[in-house]
Amino acid sequence: MLKGEGCPKNMLSIRDALEALEGRWKLLILFALASGPKRFKQLSKEVLGITDKTLSKELKSLEGNKLVQRAVYDTFPPTVEYSITAHGKSLEKVLEELHYWGLTHRKEIIGK
Amino acid sequence: MLKGEGCPKNMLSIRDALEALEGRWKLLILFALASGPKRFKQLSKEVLGITDKTLSKELKSLEGNKLVQRAVYDTFPPTVEYSITAHGKSLEKVLEELHYWGLTHRKEIIGK
Repeated sequence: MLKGEGCPKNMLSIRDALEALEGRWKLLILFALASGPKRFKQLSKEVLGITDKTLSKELKSLEGNKLVQRAVYDTFPPTVEYSITAHGKSLEKVLEELHYWGLTHRKEIIGK
Repeated sequence: MLKGEGCPKNMLSIRDALEALEGRWKLLILFALASGPKRFKQLSKEVLGITDKTLSKELKSLEGNKLVQRAVYDTFPPTVEYSITAHGKSLEKVLEELHYWGLTHRKEIIGK
């Protein structure tokens, strides 16, 4: 485990991370955006099971935490695209470890 | 980012992981248990802000996912202790990456 395990300072940073990423959707949205900028409708299809209302709310929260940016292009009708920021990309290792752990967990619990 | 980014199979394992760890409390509880087995009251003090009702609910869910085990000792009155399982300990790297990312995030957003 982490050095200084159970130490309040470590817990604080984990708490910060969990607050920014709270819920089951944010990391999945970031994961979908990791392969490139997407429009709302594309995201809504890729993130299985999310409603448009929730997607819209989650995108706003991700924007507020500088994890996603929204670009409006001057076309007719205007095009809106969402992309992952450099700060969002810095979650790469977290996503990677979650992915590997998810595979183990599936074997441990669901595969049985 | 992950190889095969945005690929539905990767998304599935991340979804599995997020379902097992959903909410803001589970990882904090596991983090508190990483330093050794604890009784309910100890946990309730260490995980700042959690109510007894939520702690009890979260511990049951963690037990169901084989991340935490509950031991009842034959003392008078009986002693109940919670500890992290080997499967729970396998979350070490996820916790570590979340910790480092939380530090960056604090600088990026909260520190400004």
